[in-house]
Amino acid sequence: MRWARIQHEGKATYAVVADEQLRLVTGTPFGEYRETGVSVAQHSAHWLSPVIPPTFYCVGLNYTAHIEMAARARGQEPVFPSQPDVGYRAVNALTGHHQPIVLPPDVTEKVQYEGELVCVIGTEAKHLTRANALDCLLGFTIGNDVSERTWQASDRTMWRAKNTDTFKPMGPWIETELDLDAALTRVRVNGEELIEFNTNDMLFGVVDYLVAITQYITLVPGDVLWMGTEGHAKNLQVGDVVDIDITGIGTLTNRVEASA
Amino acid sequence: MRWARIQHEGKATYAVVADEQLRLVTGTPFGEYRETGVSVAQHSAHWLSPVIPPTFYCVGLNYTAHIEMAARARGQEPVFPSQPDVGYRAVNALTGHHQPIVLPPDVTEKVQYEGELVCVIGTEAKHLTRANALDCLLGFTIGNDVSERTWQASDRTMWRAKNTDTFKPMGPWIETELDLDAALTRVRVNGEELIEFNTNDMLFGVVDYLVAITQYITLVPGDVLWMGTEGHAKNLQVGDVVDIDITGIGTLTNRVEASA
Repeated sequence: MRWARIQHEGKATYAVVADEQLRLVTGTPFGEYRETGVSVAQHSAHWLSPVIPPTFYCVGLNYTAHIEMAARARGQEPVFPSQPDVGYRAVNALTGHHQPIVLPPDVTEKVQYEGELVCVIGTEAKHLTRANALDCLLGFTIGNDVSERTWQASDRTMWRAKNTDTFKPMGPWIETELDLDAALTRVRVNGEELIEFNTNDMLFGVVDYLVAITQYITLVPGDVLWMGTEGHAKNLQVGDVVDIDITGIGTLTNRVEASA
Repeated sequence: MRWARIQHEGKATYAVVADEQLRLVTGTPFGEYRETGVSVAQHSAHWLSPVIPPTFYCVGLNYTAHIEMAARARGQEPVFPSQPDVGYRAVNALTGHHQPIVLPPDVTEKVQYEGELVCVIGTEAKHLTRANALDCLLGFTIGNDVSERTWQASDRTMWRAKNTDTFKPMGPWIETELDLDAALTRVRVNGEELIEFNTNDMLFGVVDYLVAITQYITLVPGDVLWMGTEGHAKNLQVGDVVDIDITGIGTLTNRVEASA
């Protein structure tokens, strides 16, 4: 089952994805819902981030080649994380499928994509075990962890490097069934495939993170956990169209624009 | 004017503070509200965090002696921030006035308080100027940035060191009028005053942060910005009662407890 969230008649509305149609509901996938009988065609939808999380978790370093390449870019030896320490991103930066990534006037040329698997929490969870951890998930979606590398290197925190408005496209929808071991993540820019990796080839996997986080922290419905990216990205330019594709979920598409 | 948020008949409810009474309203201070005619005495209230922010901003290093002492504890020279780079905390960790700070079983002895001024955003804001920055504020409250220093030093991020459930008490209420230059922050543990500083003696002030953040980021009603702390804290023990007092706002009180 696939859950989209769209702007409809001025309101954020959840919808069930049924082929090319989005069947609108009242309520949300996190609680009770009821189909309204109204549908919107996918091609005419105004897509929103499929959820606005109470807390936005994000794994920074979780794939081998990405860590090696990031270290090399800094002239350092790679250091691999020894435990699943999670980080945070900010809700202001979220945007939806087919919405623009808007570059502020003072960005440098080093604006890059990062294609990521996103876990969406469905039920409140604390003290999860390896056996029951996945039960708290509603499903999975796709994130593009857009990053301004000059600011990432110069600032004490990643506030503007990663959390500038529109720098966190998420979508297109939440897929409730996914064979994670069979999934490939592919990033295309203007149709050219630049990165392909096995989505589940993580240093610490979804279960590792869910168990570790909930030893101290209560996850609640709507929280999201972005799982990190693999590979080394190229710079994006105004006009570029980024597709992030994960097998079994779909494709998140966003165009890079300059701020007005 | 002072805005509290309490648990009343099973629901989170805003209330206007009127001496010892909390006058309940429907709605919120961020939009329309109406007094219900029902009051609850302060001494019998179940206090909640006065707001659950969409994004929870927090300044890490913003007072001179705190930066010097933290560097000395690491055996390093102090480095003072050169620009207002903001960080993040997590909503799961928030709790209210008179609610317990609950220590997980595996914390070390190095659990410490940090008394902080908190700005509460009242209206959507982007591209603020020095002249209009403060207009976006609803008011101010108090935060205790409880920190487990062993985890803060060992982990790659501050996820559990600062964001374990209940590690972010906030309250007791939002004060809409404050003479910031006249304010003193005082921290007491079991009634003994351990820290006192001029609240506004910051390296980068409220206006600096609001202007910098909104160059890239849209602030929205309910967002909070914790402004950092001064001085060097002592370790807390189970049973300790921490008061954080800011002149003109009030006192945030929380007791340290062991997890059940």
